[in-house]
Amino acid sequence: MSLSKNKIKYIQSLKQKKYRSQHNTFVAEGSKLIFDLMPHLSCQLLVIDEETKAHASNKHHKAEEIIIATRAEIKKASHLATPPDAIAVFYQSHQNLSETDLTHQLTLVLDGVQDPGNLGTIIRIADWFGIENIVCSTDTVDIYNTKTVQATMGALSRVNIHYANIVDLLTQYSNSPIYGTFLDGENIYTKTLHPHGFIVMGNEGKGIRPDVEKLISHRLYIPSFSTNNTTSESLNVAVATAIVCSEFRRR
Amino acid sequence: MSLSKNKIKYIQSLKQKKYRSQHNTFVAEGSKLIFDLMPHLSCQLLVIDEETKAHASNKHHKAEEIIIATRAEIKKASHLATPPDAIAVFYQSHQNLSETDLTHQLTLVLDGVQDPGNLGTIIRIADWFGIENIVCSTDTVDIYNTKTVQATMGALSRVNIHYANIVDLLTQYSNSPIYGTFLDGENIYTKTLHPHGFIVMGNEGKGIRPDVEKLISHRLYIPSFSTNNTTSESLNVAVATAIVCSEFRRR
Repeated sequence: MSLSKNKIKYIQSLKQKKYRSQHNTFVAEGSKLIFDLMPHLSCQLLVIDEETKAHASNKHHKAEEIIIATRAEIKKASHLATPPDAIAVFYQSHQNLSETDLTHQLTLVLDGVQDPGNLGTIIRIADWFGIENIVCSTDTVDIYNTKTVQATMGALSRVNIHYANIVDLLTQYSNSPIYGTFLDGENIYTKTLHPHGFIVMGNEGKGIRPDVEKLISHRLYIPSFSTNNTTSESLNVAVATAIVCSEFRRR
Repeated sequence: MSLSKNKIKYIQSLKQKKYRSQHNTFVAEGSKLIFDLMPHLSCQLLVIDEETKAHASNKHHKAEEIIIATRAEIKKASHLATPPDAIAVFYQSHQNLSETDLTHQLTLVLDGVQDPGNLGTIIRIADWFGIENIVCSTDTVDIYNTKTVQATMGALSRVNIHYANIVDLLTQYSNSPIYGTFLDGENIYTKTLHPHGFIVMGNEGKGIRPDVEKLISHRLYIPSFSTNNTTSESLNVAVATAIVCSEFRRR
């Protein structure tokens, strides 16, 4: 069976959040990523080239539909500049936020992160540092954006990601330590850090917005060691997240 | 004066490394980045819209040529998906590697980093952590790639970046501590780290290549705190660079 125009149109439509939400699905590209996700997520459709399928043994047995396609057909459906050896459509997975998790673990809270690549990298960082839950403000970029999915390198299936009103959430958990990074915060390297609570990371340009900032109980700062005064005013949000997570975990 | 077809063609040609090398120039986009770079680099050409110029006072006085253009004209010349308020062509800057710097400071060595965004982020990290020199293997992506330039957020003018045969370089400085991260390395959080030497970071997919690995005197490892076994096999190279630099500097 070759890849029909309708299927190409469907996969292309999933570039848009509107259609991803409507179908409750998203796209992952490349056989490595796809087979990393396959054991953890339900697969609606797998489009794969003959050769890749031959090498994949029966890893693809969980897909509802499998279509063998040429690279040229895959290219037409792909969301990427460099078309992959396979494209899959997975069902989105929505987990509930557990109160026990939130009070006994470290949770990342993202306040308006906009870049899909940054969000994907942050999910990968959370996975590495054993952070099970990320709560995103409703205006944070969609995790099912193809660029985000690709940047997670499979970590998407191992971290629970929730969208919520983070002002309401942090207000509800205001007895827990709530951390954020600010230029006037305390040196993160020497500050005592609790093993549970919330770490808030802000938007790439604007940082943490004022109504969220009010709820931060511990203001942290990652010191700069630059010898000149005209240094970068900030670190990339994914880089800052990595340093903060590393500091919480190494203690 | 409006933007001529020849100028648009010239700016567009600088997408390619071949033409950047031939003219010894590169492109930076957006007035914020351009005016960050302006005091530190020679500017051949500034293309700017009327309104942005009006707000820029005399920050642009150092450009050899200034062209007022419409946003539509700027869009034709832009290398970016979202066209900016200004485009500048700067001359490349090539610094000499100082032996004193290499023996008395911490230097980053990149072994085949391929993603322009990762390289830009690494330059920004080096700037933040006061690392003055980065030595790239000759097959590392070009720092004057527009995506790299944009990702540096201006740090490009504050960090010296060199391209060299890194096997020769590290062989020459084999009396200095040479660090690299490996899955079988020692825990970076508890290991003694010297305040000078070389930190080698590898390619996104392949890591550090074998002939460079032989020259590493201190093998480090960033521990994962994930509770499941199927975690990401690695961190993004820019993220790993940030954590390693943070560990060297906080001591």
